[in-house]
Amino acid sequence: MTDRIKYQLDESRMPTSWYNIAADLPVPLPPPLHPGTLQPLGPSDLAPLFPNAIIEQEMSTERWIDIPEPVREVLCQWRPSPLFRARRLEKLLDTPAKIYYKYEGVSPAGSHKPNSAVPQAWYNAQEGVKRLTTETGAGQWGSSLSYAGGLFGLDVTIFQVRVSYDQKPYRRALMETWGGRCVASPSNETEYGRAVLAQYPDHIGSLGIAISEAVEVAAKNDDTKYALGSVLNHVLLHQTIVGEEAITQLEMAGDDPDVVIGCTGGGSNFAGIAFPFIGLQLRGGANARKRRIVAVEPSACPSLSRGQYAYDFGDTGRMTPLVKMHTLGSEFTPPGLHAGGLRYHGMAPLVSHVKELGLIEARNYHQTACFEAGVMFARSEGIVPAPESNHAVRAAIDEALRCKAEGKSETILFCLSGHGHFDMSAYTNYLSGKLVDQDYDEKELAMALSGLPKVG
Amino acid sequence: MTDRIKYQLDESRMPTSWYNIAADLPVPLPPPLHPGTLQPLGPSDLAPLFPNAIIEQEMSTERWIDIPEPVREVLCQWRPSPLFRARRLEKLLDTPAKIYYKYEGVSPAGSHKPNSAVPQAWYNAQEGVKRLTTETGAGQWGSSLSYAGGLFGLDVTIFQVRVSYDQKPYRRALMETWGGRCVASPSNETEYGRAVLAQYPDHIGSLGIAISEAVEVAAKNDDTKYALGSVLNHVLLHQTIVGEEAITQLEMAGDDPDVVIGCTGGGSNFAGIAFPFIGLQLRGGANARKRRIVAVEPSACPSLSRGQYAYDFGDTGRMTPLVKMHTLGSEFTPPGLHAGGLRYHGMAPLVSHVKELGLIEARNYHQTACFEAGVMFARSEGIVPAPESNHAVRAAIDEALRCKAEGKSETILFCLSGHGHFDMSAYTNYLSGKLVDQDYDEKELAMALSGLPKVG
Repeated sequence: MTDRIKYQLDESRMPTSWYNIAADLPVPLPPPLHPGTLQPLGPSDLAPLFPNAIIEQEMSTERWIDIPEPVREVLCQWRPSPLFRARRLEKLLDTPAKIYYKYEGVSPAGSHKPNSAVPQAWYNAQEGVKRLTTETGAGQWGSSLSYAGGLFGLDVTIFQVRVSYDQKPYRRALMETWGGRCVASPSNETEYGRAVLAQYPDHIGSLGIAISEAVEVAAKNDDTKYALGSVLNHVLLHQTIVGEEAITQLEMAGDDPDVVIGCTGGGSNFAGIAFPFIGLQLRGGANARKRRIVAVEPSACPSLSRGQYAYDFGDTGRMTPLVKMHTLGSEFTPPGLHAGGLRYHGMAPLVSHVKELGLIEARNYHQTACFEAGVMFARSEGIVPAPESNHAVRAAIDEALRCKAEGKSETILFCLSGHGHFDMSAYTNYLSGKLVDQDYDEKELAMALSGLPKVG
Repeated sequence: MTDRIKYQLDESRMPTSWYNIAADLPVPLPPPLHPGTLQPLGPSDLAPLFPNAIIEQEMSTERWIDIPEPVREVLCQWRPSPLFRARRLEKLLDTPAKIYYKYEGVSPAGSHKPNSAVPQAWYNAQEGVKRLTTETGAGQWGSSLSYAGGLFGLDVTIFQVRVSYDQKPYRRALMETWGGRCVASPSNETEYGRAVLAQYPDHIGSLGIAISEAVEVAAKNDDTKYALGSVLNHVLLHQTIVGEEAITQLEMAGDDPDVVIGCTGGGSNFAGIAFPFIGLQLRGGANARKRRIVAVEPSACPSLSRGQYAYDFGDTGRMTPLVKMHTLGSEFTPPGLHAGGLRYHGMAPLVSHVKELGLIEARNYHQTACFEAGVMFARSEGIVPAPESNHAVRAAIDEALRCKAEGKSETILFCLSGHGHFDMSAYTNYLSGKLVDQDYDEKELAMALSGLPKVG
């Protein structure tokens, strides 16, 4: 076949280590702080929540960290994931640009999330943990941890943001099929959840609240640890396998991206596709040219674009350490948009840091523009993207249209982080004209920002 | 990695032709008959419904039929599909058997159906057809044709069995996202549909009725043809790419199946995995040993196990040609079970024929036993199977347990024809104990069989 569309690596070429960008940063990442003492966090502060191996990774500045063999044996069921050239989309757009997408929807849970769920479950099981708690928005992370926990004999309890719990019953069914227990958050199962419900009985929930509940349960039970699906360094680390593979696959294709695009909520998907490319630049050498790296977020929850770069809590209940990040304030409740995975008040400290260092750019879109792009993509490339991924599709299409206007044949790479099979009601809403763009409340944002903890 | 679980062929090894079992049958297939004259059908009788290239394939006895290059270019997005060794399931069952599964859920529509939807859409587009009509049960076929039609600029109208239309709104959303138009059947859009509704306003529908509606619209409109997702020879032909790949992949693995298993509704999935193996046997030579080939159907709709081998109509409205097949009678309405893709009164003539020739065996299961198997599979192998595929999973597990009881290390291959992402409400029902086994009505079956057309 003359016009190749698929670049599939043999499993023998699956990366054997994750890339740790902390090794190459020109300025080190500001440390997380203890919420009580405001002093930099030590490993023992994290011990109630995470196993030692994860804490080590969280603080490591080693450049390459080995992927354990049992983890690779699970990942290789769907990894290396395919890289596709979007030839039919290019034709539809009539663009001189070349568009490539790395497709993470091939995992059992249908997104990039198992890339971190599997090692997290494995490390916990190795250290004798019996149960994991976590939060989930759209359910991509919760289902991934339910899947991964089950593989290694762990019980998994998932606090799912109420609005997604109600909007996406099939995601919950998926979590339960894999043996996880799913609880709508805010819930009556935690002190914090009960406190929220006492004040707002109809609260639609938020990732910040669900994190507080999951952390509370883990902190109070010896056999239970907490697993986070994004934001933290070790989660971003596990996702770098995506970008590492993409670099090899684009070499196969004889191409090199001028623009690398990922959607970003907590930041793990974005870091997964972007950090290995930023690493090429930071380390210098033959591949060191500066590529444009674009993070795409929803206009309704624009932490990178509109947030403050400041120390803040990761959760609404103020139980987590303080981390320096772009934040809308931990009290901020984003509108109930369909890209539930992007409804988070903060941004991964590492993503925030590289933004401050000028290594990446950020943009945001309203959801109808994203679904419009998603339908164009589905009708040309076949795959129906997750609402989160539609943000990256929108940006890739806009870059391709810019190339058309400028007569440039640039190479665009984006991560298609997952499929939309569990989000079809959003497509029904869009196709029937019922989907509306939602904005955050400016007054609420101002209040949430004014409530940022005073540090330094 | 020592314990290999994935056998992925490079796209350069994707088959270049389909295997036509008609070339190797020891006894020729009884011909389809014209419903009026009861004489064998000529190509011109099919011309109102199908393009010439499809009619040629339907009647061909050539052993190998080339897959057109533009069709291969679409298929190679997800083909060759992976073959997996189910090592975690083997361990769970503690069986000495080796279990392999060929996974067809990697297509954009999530099942094997696009293997035929893509060539059918392409052949129609080549011959100037503007619109396709079809029927669909669970929606696997309708969504696949919607996807494939869109790629080649065809309008697609899908008559979906009412019970599935109501049970699976997300499948409909998928069809609409790809641009297809979905109509609940029986509908008011056809004479036949109106006649059924006049008699039974609350009819839950059946594939037989939906076929009548789709055929009627195609027959009455010059620019419109009909596309069938199973049963006919050319559809089974297109699916043989599955078994052809599996043969090569098992060679890679150094294995040869003792048992080959596929679920069967109309028969296309079963034929896809089975016919290439039956062909090895029929053609003789080094690979000619007799393997057990097992067709699995629902107890609620057991055409192979309980039907008569007789000439019957493919549809309830008696508009189609008469074909010789195992049938429960075209008036038979199967219970509204969750494996909507298996709710068909008949069986592919080619599958029925090889059953009569003693080349395959048949068995049937109730749906709760199938969902039990599906959940075991999901919790070990990760992938959540479609309800139809759960029938094959059940049979594979039972064969593996038989091997355990007998202390035999046989090799079992089954086709995992699709994922269950659009069927999660069925899993919710199963997990909450609400799923019940349904039986057909013996009296209704007797009546439907007594109504079989009198031929020869």
